[in-house]
Amino acid sequence: MSTVNRQFHLAAVPVGMPKESDFKIVEAPLPSVAEGQILIKTAYWSVDPYMRGRITGVKSYADPIRVGDLMLGGSVGEVVESKNPSYQKGDFVMGMWGWQEYEVSTGKGMQKLNPQLAPVSTALGILGMPGLTAYFGFLDICQPKPGETVVISGAAGAVGSLVGQLAKIKGCRVIGIAGADDKVDHLVNDLGFDAAFNYKTVPNYLEKLKELCPKGIDCYFDNVGGAITDAVFPLLNLYARVSICGQISQYNLEKPELGPRLLTYVLVKQARVEGFIIMRFVERFSEGVMQMAQWLKEGKLKYREDVMEGFEIIPAAFIALLSGKNTGKMLVRAR
Amino acid sequence: MSTVNRQFHLAAVPVGMPKESDFKIVEAPLPSVAEGQILIKTAYWSVDPYMRGRITGVKSYADPIRVGDLMLGGSVGEVVESKNPSYQKGDFVMGMWGWQEYEVSTGKGMQKLNPQLAPVSTALGILGMPGLTAYFGFLDICQPKPGETVVISGAAGAVGSLVGQLAKIKGCRVIGIAGADDKVDHLVNDLGFDAAFNYKTVPNYLEKLKELCPKGIDCYFDNVGGAITDAVFPLLNLYARVSICGQISQYNLEKPELGPRLLTYVLVKQARVEGFIIMRFVERFSEGVMQMAQWLKEGKLKYREDVMEGFEIIPAAFIALLSGKNTGKMLVRAR
Repeated sequence: MSTVNRQFHLAAVPVGMPKESDFKIVEAPLPSVAEGQILIKTAYWSVDPYMRGRITGVKSYADPIRVGDLMLGGSVGEVVESKNPSYQKGDFVMGMWGWQEYEVSTGKGMQKLNPQLAPVSTALGILGMPGLTAYFGFLDICQPKPGETVVISGAAGAVGSLVGQLAKIKGCRVIGIAGADDKVDHLVNDLGFDAAFNYKTVPNYLEKLKELCPKGIDCYFDNVGGAITDAVFPLLNLYARVSICGQISQYNLEKPELGPRLLTYVLVKQARVEGFIIMRFVERFSEGVMQMAQWLKEGKLKYREDVMEGFEIIPAAFIALLSGKNTGKMLVRAR
Repeated sequence: MSTVNRQFHLAAVPVGMPKESDFKIVEAPLPSVAEGQILIKTAYWSVDPYMRGRITGVKSYADPIRVGDLMLGGSVGEVVESKNPSYQKGDFVMGMWGWQEYEVSTGKGMQKLNPQLAPVSTALGILGMPGLTAYFGFLDICQPKPGETVVISGAAGAVGSLVGQLAKIKGCRVIGIAGADDKVDHLVNDLGFDAAFNYKTVPNYLEKLKELCPKGIDCYFDNVGGAITDAVFPLLNLYARVSICGQISQYNLEKPELGPRLLTYVLVKQARVEGFIIMRFVERFSEGVMQMAQWLKEGKLKYREDVMEGFEIIPAAFIALLSGKNTGKMLVRAR
């Protein structure tokens, strides 16, 4: 076993789209394992859009990662040494130990995984934070009803692809917006979306949405913001519900951009627009995981992982994610 | 008694701020009163911001008033002839018969007023639609809690001035934004707002709001939209509630204006932004009127009326309202 624990630290606060040089590898000594502790070797690192908001240098909903800090994030790893009777060597756990190869912990705040239930990587996807985000952020905030029309931006991502499937479970008409033809194909042909379009090749989003949503839009699950969202608001129906999960189109702008004012649509349609951070629902996480696992077992939910390999590639994977290169959950697997 | 019933019809769909020539007086014959009907002579006409949205030529939440149609609106009048046993000559009623001097009706959809309870004009203000708008639009949508900070735009208008007083009843810190020094003075010295400012003389709304809201903003009741609202969103607290009652700054723009994108604040602060039209609460109107009347009787609510006189002046009163000339409820009294 290595005696070194490689970590990625934030090297610079990114300006616009992050660059690989905004992160640097630091070699820390492998910590020793005290009584009551376990040593975990990371198997999968998660990269997620929310991370961009944590490295802006300013407080958002949480304190920022500062230059010189270990990058944060959810990971799955294997217990390689245990001095804690609750864990055995070979157990898999999920926790928030960030972009590093090893973690020493008492196990507090971690979740022990059952590899028989589903592949351990799903603890970072459909049975983890993205799954919970889809479950609570869509079902609780949008309250979809059968027959309603649901539009999802960032529809081919880890969260969006699940939201669309949840909307189908609830009997809705589901329209996805994504940024590549193969993603559109995946949404419609693999995941059962009623329609989808590639915003990079459709010139007029509003006209396209009018065509695909002849009865207007009852629920909008927004991962993206910007011009796509601008085209959705004029089509909202009376009492529409909008769940603001992300605004990825805005995260890497060097200057905030202007857009059409949307509040008159909110007024006239008596719409409700609500933002959320998944930790709001922490007390109900077990409900969400159990229900998602049940639907997964019943074949009602599918998921796709987009896996890159090797610790060194994490920043590149994160940049690929922010550039919309992934279909499904973006992960980095340890070699 | 006159044999002519003067009415204002829409003469042209206004472009930008309405002009008096967008309305024209039409002399209709005074209708005769059939069995079961009453003849009402209007005593007060209400002019309200929502009317601007009904004369755009396009459907909003309701069909538009078209060129040649009678202008709509709430009015209070006196029964001058009755062939309906439920009404006596001298009774006062409130109804939606629009900008005309007389109305013949069975009384359906009208509300008989008790002049002993409060002046009949209050049926168009504190005990009418503006009062109900403040009551439900603030208390239901914002759910204010003691100690929270509440900001109100259009704070010296019929609705805003009541919202601020309701917020004080609920134990909140209340900040009003209005467009004249005498309005600011009225809010603070007559109505008990904790602070207020004149947006026409304050150069930087954001800095002013930071100064007046050191603990951030928990509830925002928006009548105005535009640059004022842009300055509120960055100061929203976690789980803030925003009630969109009006967007009067946008109604008379000839071209929609651009503004900063606000949804990232909604996301990060997990805020809820909701629009409403008062008719949504129609089944609870009696609850609202009774509670407002009770608070009025107890001296916990004050109101001011801004009264112009004479049928012919209604369009000018409406334009004055849209220009922010009024303090309190804008009314036109019949001569």
